[in-house]
Amino acid sequence: MSPEEFRRHGKQVVDWIADYLAGLESQPVMSQVKPGEIRRALPPEPPEHGEPFEAVLTDLGRILLPGITHWQHPSFFAYFPSNASGPAVLGDLISSGLGVQGMLWVTSPACTELETVVVDWLAGLLDLPARFRTDAAGGGVIQDSASSACLIALLAALHRAGGGQVAAEGVTRRYTMYVSSQTHSSLEKAARIAGLGTAGVRVVDVDPDTLAMDPGHLRALLDEDAAAGVVPVMVCATVGTTSTTAVDPVAALGAVCRERGIWLHVDAAYAGVAAICPELRWLNDGVAEYADSYSTNPHKWLLTNFDCTVLWVGERAPLLGALSIQPEFLRNAATSTGSVVDYRDWQVPLGRRFRALKLWSVIRWYGAEGLRAHIRDGVRLAQDLASWISADPGFEVWEPHPLGLVCFRPLWPGLPAAEADHATMRLMELLNASGSMYMTHTKVAGRVLLRMAIGGVATQRRHVEQAWEHIRWEHAALSASLPGHS
Amino acid sequence: MSPEEFRRHGKQVVDWIADYLAGLESQPVMSQVKPGEIRRALPPEPPEHGEPFEAVLTDLGRILLPGITHWQHPSFFAYFPSNASGPAVLGDLISSGLGVQGMLWVTSPACTELETVVVDWLAGLLDLPARFRTDAAGGGVIQDSASSACLIALLAALHRAGGGQVAAEGVTRRYTMYVSSQTHSSLEKAARIAGLGTAGVRVVDVDPDTLAMDPGHLRALLDEDAAAGVVPVMVCATVGTTSTTAVDPVAALGAVCRERGIWLHVDAAYAGVAAICPELRWLNDGVAEYADSYSTNPHKWLLTNFDCTVLWVGERAPLLGALSIQPEFLRNAATSTGSVVDYRDWQVPLGRRFRALKLWSVIRWYGAEGLRAHIRDGVRLAQDLASWISADPGFEVWEPHPLGLVCFRPLWPGLPAAEADHATMRLMELLNASGSMYMTHTKVAGRVLLRMAIGGVATQRRHVEQAWEHIRWEHAALSASLPGHS
Repeated sequence: MSPEEFRRHGKQVVDWIADYLAGLESQPVMSQVKPGEIRRALPPEPPEHGEPFEAVLTDLGRILLPGITHWQHPSFFAYFPSNASGPAVLGDLISSGLGVQGMLWVTSPACTELETVVVDWLAGLLDLPARFRTDAAGGGVIQDSASSACLIALLAALHRAGGGQVAAEGVTRRYTMYVSSQTHSSLEKAARIAGLGTAGVRVVDVDPDTLAMDPGHLRALLDEDAAAGVVPVMVCATVGTTSTTAVDPVAALGAVCRERGIWLHVDAAYAGVAAICPELRWLNDGVAEYADSYSTNPHKWLLTNFDCTVLWVGERAPLLGALSIQPEFLRNAATSTGSVVDYRDWQVPLGRRFRALKLWSVIRWYGAEGLRAHIRDGVRLAQDLASWISADPGFEVWEPHPLGLVCFRPLWPGLPAAEADHATMRLMELLNASGSMYMTHTKVAGRVLLRMAIGGVATQRRHVEQAWEHIRWEHAALSASLPGHS
Repeated sequence: MSPEEFRRHGKQVVDWIADYLAGLESQPVMSQVKPGEIRRALPPEPPEHGEPFEAVLTDLGRILLPGITHWQHPSFFAYFPSNASGPAVLGDLISSGLGVQGMLWVTSPACTELETVVVDWLAGLLDLPARFRTDAAGGGVIQDSASSACLIALLAALHRAGGGQVAAEGVTRRYTMYVSSQTHSSLEKAARIAGLGTAGVRVVDVDPDTLAMDPGHLRALLDEDAAAGVVPVMVCATVGTTSTTAVDPVAALGAVCRERGIWLHVDAAYAGVAAICPELRWLNDGVAEYADSYSTNPHKWLLTNFDCTVLWVGERAPLLGALSIQPEFLRNAATSTGSVVDYRDWQVPLGRRFRALKLWSVIRWYGAEGLRAHIRDGVRLAQDLASWISADPGFEVWEPHPLGLVCFRPLWPGLPAAEADHATMRLMELLNASGSMYMTHTKVAGRVLLRMAIGGVATQRRHVEQAWEHIRWEHAALSASLPGHS
């Protein structure tokens, strides 16, 4: 494709996306296709001869679009938001167009240096400690996801705990990591990948009201493990759990970690970016004093399209010790001077896209005040929703809900717990199948809760109001249809 | 940014990229900036107020562009090509614009099903065995990089070798992986990440002429390790090594693996896609019979921009066994029926971009014949270059060079080996610093070789001719300036 053909087709694609975004509300939020339906509509063999680009766009609309669940739809309330704002998409487009590979500083200095600048900017915006800056002993880096960031933190922690032995000799002792029942499943996945296995994951109790990790129980488990000769490697505290946005007591957990010399990772995937608002900085209480590493996802709530997780470490030495290997074909003068950062040593893959461009583009377009306004809009709408639900005797709100996620439960008077949960799931499925909204669920203490996560780029008050009206209406209809209802 | 603002700025970015691509030849290939130069030109603090998008584009050209090493430049011959064709960039743009997250089938069925279709298409184009198709027991998946693909293969192999114990209990025994001195460093990195450590990596001898792994020595190492009670997990055979595109004898290695029940991974990161041409299918001899997993990178030579590695496995069960964890918040009706693929269980991260779009867009725009023509152009130009170098008494070509990479060495009559290598490196640095071309080096048997990798989207015969002329001219000039030259 020549530059002139690219110019022409590129503008067609831009128009397609602008039209898509403008017309999004008329689409069902959640795709209604059946398994295999999209696949069967596509040819089983690739074309022998090239086709015009218009054929791709036609099939995109005709075949693929019905199979899309629209994450940018204003009535998407499932999981967590995955913001893809205009400037982020364009930053990503510039990255694709330049087509550089930033594995080493030398393979595109701007790719590395802009990344250093924007992760330092973000550290400043979130008021993270100075040791996370690249000019200190630590630094930040963009990862694809919080899962990878937690794995990298674990590998660095293992390197420190094992005195470098893990990289050299492997996992030759019993190492353990500490999480709670509310910690994201990616931590157990990381433990499996890193050779600790599920058995190396210790589950600390949580406070039944707040679902926050219990520092006293952490201490008890550590005593037990010390007696058994196990080496504790890392505690993962979560700021804003996936299930209910519970916030672990970072300072109290950090004090235990410091006492025992254990790495403290703070997984703030969803909630961390909210600290851009001074009134939400309490979320990170204890981080400045105690965290060895910290990660948050601009690709969730901070207007930057997936993938963009930022991981900061207080010390980069254990990370490089765990991951740096220098084959001849990657040696170069800049690296050998030690004066540059080679981010390939901060991640699992070798290759790197120029992801800093999208975060840079987002921060510049919105400015700090625009980013704060976006977070505040989400929090305000969520608090309003929670107040409406609380005021309705047919529903119960899960407390606390300090951010953009509201968990709640419809009440089904007279139904035993299991049947009530079944009815709640049925309600959710009906709402999702209607195409008018999309939400997901979780379980707390064995009981189903519905989750509505607010914070989409296009979500306005009317979308939340409509969703709530729809939920109430469907709940009333379903209640009336239940056996035993008179 | 509203859809209409996106439309306007999107077209500005498309124009910027089209102009960039059209004017690429006037840029120095390799960035000439010094460490810290780009960083110092950027403001240390983020903007408080939002800025117009034009400000981003201005700084892109003014500040960042001098710090870009242009991987799409027709005279980029370093590392391996990292093709970013027009249809790939546009496929990626559609992915960013849709902003879907394909972690589960249900979170966007089209994202999963198109991926299944295109990896099956590619398996067909490369004539890979039927067991790698999703309808059989195996299947393909897009990963970010060959590094990640090799790690995933190792985790699946560990799961099989340990009978599932690794996921449950961690690395509690001594496990080993077999590579050669020519295997990519990402395999050692994978061994470190997976808890085997560098000590778990056994280095099999290579044939000194072809640099291919020696099956006899593999057998000897396995005997040694069996006697020591170590569990062999995986052999990684490489089809087209990074250093010189050496090809390991997959069939002979595979026979050893089958005999001993060891997982055979074939890392064909660079060369694998060349099998799209029937005359190059010999590259994969033995894959159909023996490979448990196979990976190749459309993001190198197959016109699809980074990141796009395809990993196929003959059996998906050990992969899912190693990586699948089901927390409540990801449960859904489609997954629980077992009738859909959830690719999150096939990779390290949880989240997924819609990367299939770019590969689909590339295959449709070029068609199989266009893809073959691109590979053949690269091979033909490389063979021509090799013939010119061979014919020049001042140079020596490394044999074999069956693909797009040519390794060679300028001769420095009268200089001892170390000084000759120093002069070769000096020659490369002068050429790279000139901005007219960019190449990298490797070492074979302790001696420096220069590497010229051909296969860029924009590279034509005249660019290779100019590079060769420049190399000869600079070699003559440098030879004349050496002490002792009269």
